[in-house]
Amino acid sequence: MPLLLNADLGEGAGGIDLDVDAAVMPHIHQANIACGFHAGDQMSMLKTLQLAGRHGVMIGAHPGYRDLEGFGRRSMAHTPEEIAALLHYQIAALDGMARSMGLTLAYVKPHGALYNDMMKDAQLRRAVMEAVASFYQPLHLMIQATPEAEAHRREAAALGVPLWLEAFADRCYDDSGLLVPRSCSGAVLSREQTLAQVASLVETGEIIAAGGLRLPLAADTLCVHGDNPESIRVIRELRQLVS
Amino acid sequence: MPLLLNADLGEGAGGIDLDVDAAVMPHIHQANIACGFHAGDQMSMLKTLQLAGRHGVMIGAHPGYRDLEGFGRRSMAHTPEEIAALLHYQIAALDGMARSMGLTLAYVKPHGALYNDMMKDAQLRRAVMEAVASFYQPLHLMIQATPEAEAHRREAAALGVPLWLEAFADRCYDDSGLLVPRSCSGAVLSREQTLAQVASLVETGEIIAAGGLRLPLAADTLCVHGDNPESIRVIRELRQLVS
Amino acid sequence: MPLLLNADLGEGAGGIDLDVDAAVMPHIHQANIACGFHAGDQMSMLKTLQLAGRHGVMIGAHPGYRDLEGFGRRSMAHTPEEIAALLHYQIAALDGMARSMGLTLAYVKPHGALYNDMMKDAQLRRAVMEAVASFYQPLHLMIQATPEAEAHRREAAALGVPLWLEAFADRCYDDSGLLVPRSCSGAVLSREQTLAQVASLVETGEIIAAGGLRLPLAADTLCVHGDNPESIRVIRELRQLVS
Amino acid sequence: MPLLLNADLGEGAGGIDLDVDAAVMPHIHQANIACGFHAGDQMSMLKTLQLAGRHGVMIGAHPGYRDLEGFGRRSMAHTPEEIAALLHYQIAALDGMARSMGLTLAYVKPHGALYNDMMKDAQLRRAVMEAVASFYQPLHLMIQATPEAEAHRREAAALGVPLWLEAFADRCYDDSGLLVPRSCSGAVLSREQTLAQVASLVETGEIIAAGGLRLPLAADTLCVHGDNPESIRVIRELRQLVS
Repeated sequence: MPLLLNADLGEGAGGIDLDVDAAVMPHIHQANIACGFHAGDQMSMLKTLQLAGRHGVMIGAHPGYRDLEGFGRRSMAHTPEEIAALLHYQIAALDGMARSMGLTLAYVKPHGALYNDMMKDAQLRRAVMEAVASFYQPLHLMIQATPEAEAHRREAAALGVPLWLEAFADRCYDDSGLLVPRSCSGAVLSREQTLAQVASLVETGEIIAAGGLRLPLAADTLCVHGDNPESIRVIRELRQLVS
Repeated sequence: MPLLLNADLGEGAGGIDLDVDAAVMPHIHQANIACGFHAGDQMSMLKTLQLAGRHGVMIGAHPGYRDLEGFGRRSMAHTPEEIAALLHYQIAALDGMARSMGLTLAYVKPHGALYNDMMKDAQLRRAVMEAVASFYQPLHLMIQATPEAEAHRREAAALGVPLWLEAFADRCYDDSGLLVPRSCSGAVLSREQTLAQVASLVETGEIIAAGGLRLPLAADTLCVHGDNPESIRVIRELRQLVS
Repeated sequence: MPLLLNADLGEGAGGIDLDVDAAVMPHIHQANIACGFHAGDQMSMLKTLQLAGRHGVMIGAHPGYRDLEGFGRRSMAHTPEEIAALLHYQIAALDGMARSMGLTLAYVKPHGALYNDMMKDAQLRRAVMEAVASFYQPLHLMIQATPEAEAHRREAAALGVPLWLEAFADRCYDDSGLLVPRSCSGAVLSREQTLAQVASLVETGEIIAAGGLRLPLAADTLCVHGDNPESIRVIRELRQLVS
Repeated sequence: MPLLLNADLGEGAGGIDLDVDAAVMPHIHQANIACGFHAGDQMSMLKTLQLAGRHGVMIGAHPGYRDLEGFGRRSMAHTPEEIAALLHYQIAALDGMARSMGLTLAYVKPHGALYNDMMKDAQLRRAVMEAVASFYQPLHLMIQATPEAEAHRREAAALGVPLWLEAFADRCYDDSGLLVPRSCSGAVLSREQTLAQVASLVETGEIIAAGGLRLPLAADTLCVHGDNPESIRVIRELRQLVS
């Protein structure tokens, strides 16, 4: 299976027009679309769905905590029942909009603090998996590729949820296969390092850790960012590498 | 066809618990559920859906303008494309939540200023009808029963949208078959007047206008309110009348 | 100094009218007014300020995390700079509205999760105290009366912030002088227990802990609740006790 | 009196970082700062206030309708009492934050639909003027310079509110001295036309209307926009012209 490229899109709303979506969409395989709780609104969802449809890009819901002000980057405690309602509402909103445009929702990728919390907290991860499992329409769940991937696959399989494991093209991994925190120097890779890491992933299935160590990482998809013209160029080069 | 009873529910959210839903649900046929824009949130939707499911009550989306502060009672200008996105997002959120609970969404009743604006403005009404028509799942649209009902039915039929026409059990009509504005004295009927008006509707299909005149009004459903114990008693009596 | 009574008010907004404010206001000394982030909006603030002014009740800002959906009851991580902005915005909004009505803001009582987090986390408590200290207008800070009260007074005094220590009339304390969590049985006292506890506080400065132990608790003010007619009766009885 | 330059700033929030403020601030005299209802939040307000303070720029509140999704560009009906609460809350929030930083709020400029509605509707304009008049701290009100300027000055003077009249540097005026609607071709001037119009205003107090006609327009301040590097260059040139 070739590696796919995914990007977080549809994050503009209100008075702020983001051209990111239009620039990135032609080069990716999977669009993670914000659903109005941490970013986006029904108009940004409509426009991003139209763009994804035009470019034949796979559509994913990108639900987050309800925290527009903090962009969904702050942890917020939820019971499992609240997680189910939080996810079903956002996923359903995008699913029904997509269906009404003749498009199909394929997967869910939690956003920001919800994503990070889920990777750290087994109980929350179970609540997320159960929410995806109990959604009326079968969907993949996208989570981080870590050394625990096999255990995660088993957890999800027990609930009937297929996983897509995600690696981060431009982020440095530490020797245990986890991401170097953004607050540390060297956390974000240069263009050259990014290309080298992805080439390594494509050829040998290994990422290049901070100390130079090569570690196997089972990844199905690569998260990419297209915030500026330079990063769009990198995405084009990554698309060459994974094709 | 017997007259049905419908009520606006699921309007609590956040720290405020409303017991209205539990008290009203056993006595009505159709629950209009707020979708988070003018009132409610994903947890109130979940709980109201559970209640409706338990009592076998038909489920309707009750979408409004995004105005929690004003409870959706203030007009807000929207283009037809914005109306479609506004309605699709809210309807889809409730539809997907309902489906995930084994329930089925049956209809849409616009809320507050959106409802009133739609009755007055043919262009907005057309945008609402087109939004319902273009939703992926066939749904009825509930609008006000007025002397223009036949024209409204034709507008809707041309777009393939079946209508349910709604009369107001406890509101006084004027001699032209429109509602006496709430700001006028006598706008809201007493218990006795409400029962008399509904008895008339059931027996002869006529409402009793402010001047005592009886006017034919083609209604499929009656809007009822259950804000306090007294009004719950009236709903029970209305249920006897329409059964 | 006699004990004062304080209550959380102004928590209605949008379509939901709360009559709590009008029923409670005549019986308390201090009104903690929600500032729009966890509950309330500019209209509820206006009305609650008017009521407080009419009854000569002292006015406090009751700021919370921005989480209307969760009523400010969910912890949300903030940097000290973000805490300052969060508090200054909400306090300033109420302060300027009060001044424009000829009223004066006297104090700040953090709400919900912000209050609880502050009592547990010294760094957050310092951020809250610094925010109150750096507000342009001198204000008291209301926090929970605990066995650590002396240490808290020193922390606050070093920043020039006078404290008011708050006890909870209807909550059971454990033998270490902390509140029995709401999830435990016996956490909320009956009417008789509430009156006995407050009588003890007034006469000897001691609360009655879960095991019957009497513990000294240095309190300046008592938090009371007026959600229903029964609780209003209790507030009237408490007012007799503390007068 | 030389013409001043004003700009709408602090419109970013949540995850979206706007660099507009930093680029524009060195070149303007007056910063209209969004107060969280149509755009911005307490953190954007903090940062924009800091920037304004550093550059010695005059600080204005830029309140709008509560409509983040529509960026305050949709009319929403309010009673005069609601207008007062809407404005006092937003103005007070910015005023108290500014004071706590040693800065002073100088004026109010309503935003978007509130601004346009106020220019068209005398009753709403009176409600806005009364709200500014009843704010505890004396403030100027900035409104559009039109041929009705003298009448507007009298309305405001009767309430004790001093006005600043605003012209639009890059907008085309029609022969009656009103703005050509944005939906019409030629509504937005080219760089050359903008410079010519402002030069004319500075030298003779006249704008250059669509048909080439020169019309006197009594303006105290010019609204400028700095969305991109080109527009920043124009602002620098305008600053030369008005100095």
